[in-house]
Amino acid sequence: MGKNNKKKKVALIGCGLIGQSWAVSFLCAGFSVSLFDPTESVTETAKEKIAAKLSDLQNHGLIRKRKISDYFDQIYLAPSISKAVEDCIYVQESGPENLDVKKELTLNIDKATPDHIPIASSTSGIPTSLYANELKGNYRCIVAHPINPPHLIPAVEIVPAPFTNQSTIKTVKTIISSIGKEPIELNKEIPGFIVNRLQGALLIEAFNLAKEGICSAQEIDKAISAGLGLRWSLMGPFETIHLNAPEGIAGYVERYEKMYQEIFNRTDLDWSSVINHGLEKELLSLYDPNNHEEHESERDSKLTKLILHKNKH
Amino acid sequence: MGKNNKKKKVALIGCGLIGQSWAVSFLCAGFSVSLFDPTESVTETAKEKIAAKLSDLQNHGLIRKRKISDYFDQIYLAPSISKAVEDCIYVQESGPENLDVKKELTLNIDKATPDHIPIASSTSGIPTSLYANELKGNYRCIVAHPINPPHLIPAVEIVPAPFTNQSTIKTVKTIISSIGKEPIELNKEIPGFIVNRLQGALLIEAFNLAKEGICSAQEIDKAISAGLGLRWSLMGPFETIHLNAPEGIAGYVERYEKMYQEIFNRTDLDWSSVINHGLEKELLSLYDPNNHEEHESERDSKLTKLILHKNKH
Repeated sequence: MGKNNKKKKVALIGCGLIGQSWAVSFLCAGFSVSLFDPTESVTETAKEKIAAKLSDLQNHGLIRKRKISDYFDQIYLAPSISKAVEDCIYVQESGPENLDVKKELTLNIDKATPDHIPIASSTSGIPTSLYANELKGNYRCIVAHPINPPHLIPAVEIVPAPFTNQSTIKTVKTIISSIGKEPIELNKEIPGFIVNRLQGALLIEAFNLAKEGICSAQEIDKAISAGLGLRWSLMGPFETIHLNAPEGIAGYVERYEKMYQEIFNRTDLDWSSVINHGLEKELLSLYDPNNHEEHESERDSKLTKLILHKNKH
Repeated sequence: MGKNNKKKKVALIGCGLIGQSWAVSFLCAGFSVSLFDPTESVTETAKEKIAAKLSDLQNHGLIRKRKISDYFDQIYLAPSISKAVEDCIYVQESGPENLDVKKELTLNIDKATPDHIPIASSTSGIPTSLYANELKGNYRCIVAHPINPPHLIPAVEIVPAPFTNQSTIKTVKTIISSIGKEPIELNKEIPGFIVNRLQGALLIEAFNLAKEGICSAQEIDKAISAGLGLRWSLMGPFETIHLNAPEGIAGYVERYEKMYQEIFNRTDLDWSSVINHGLEKELLSLYDPNNHEEHESERDSKLTKLILHKNKH
């Protein structure tokens, strides 16, 4: 993987925490990175902070080069956007979460960057439609949203706008995969994308429980870190419930839809109709209920190893 | 731990999957278990299934005895509830999730069990108030809800009814802790308790995303298992957001409350007032923002080790 990426360069515009983390991920995968931040001092200190993060990874045995300074040949501190994007195959923008700032920054990147080079934004919730609609190069604008801490968490949301072309989507997924990340592809835009919507839904309930005085914040945290989160670090919510009934998700919905309707007082909750529109079909094709016991015992084995690992560290 | 529990016996009423898992947990911690199920054949096959689960744990190096059959001395198959509860310090009921069945079963257990011995139910959502209100021994009735797969996941929800006495709560927490589980204590009852409410909130949003055609089930699962779930297996939602802003949770709420209001179109979302009613105070006392960088680097180190572990297994 690393070898194929050599001599390839990406431009990272915005060098705060997120930009620095992108630099670490690209450097580790063999890419060269070209850094630019509108505030000159940020670009300069970014190099030190990147070195510190690389050093952490080295201490965990995660990177190969003996000296952190050996990575410095792959880092170019650019004096302008147009210098930064020169000879780059990809641009990742990690500017502030402000619509007007992002509009102007993307406009400047689009002007400076050769045609067909993807321009991805790290935004955690602003859809590309809102900031790139009127750009000449809107077809190569897209969201590639990493998750904090971005140099460690594999998932990266890939969110195209209606005007983003297929070749951009394909190239961005390939590049994100080539640095060892896990692209999560959305078919269309939605406010908050999927990561912050899933997190937000859980947070809303957590705040509600705190507000109602049901238990302390620490107990809520333990319910996740010593409970649901252990399963979720191995399998997502759909695989989990598909595996919680012998017939798969249809069996789960049959058994528990009413319980959840009552818990949340939501008579409009219509999981039965949702599974009939493709969800059950997808899950059955991913996980055959005939292999249910095998799947369950694989989960238990992974869970046991995870718990042993957590007890040690 | 194991040594102190020797010669102590617990009664497990209901020997399906949940009852079997409780047996494994108690046996591993040195307890003797007395099993009863209204269907005789269930009690008999339970022993084999318990042995198979113990064998799995042995293969992972988790239990000490050399032969699984050595555990058999600690297992007593009882012919009735009254025989099962004899000389037991604790009763765990794992009957069906049906209010009428649970009412009758708990009535029979209460009649047969000496005063002051706790009677805990494994129910995942039926509050004790609903099934034990009129019992003579209601003061020692409580919920102890384990999470699937129950012999592996540490978290156990402890949910007292308004009539449950303090000594019962204390004893149950001590027993649950003594078998290596993590008691999650609720101050009061709420439908679904906290585990299924947190899971349900996330599931409702996951089904919503599937319904809207935003992405496949597999992408939603990856957003959790390669994203949010990795963090959540190490720290709960409150610790996570407290650590996502230098000032702690107040800084997070200041920055993101509006974003979540907009994402979910919920102008009633009032996290600012919730943190002012004790939540911020609790989190500040648990995690001092002055140690923010240290806490962050501890998280990153644990996360790195977790990801390395997952890549290997």
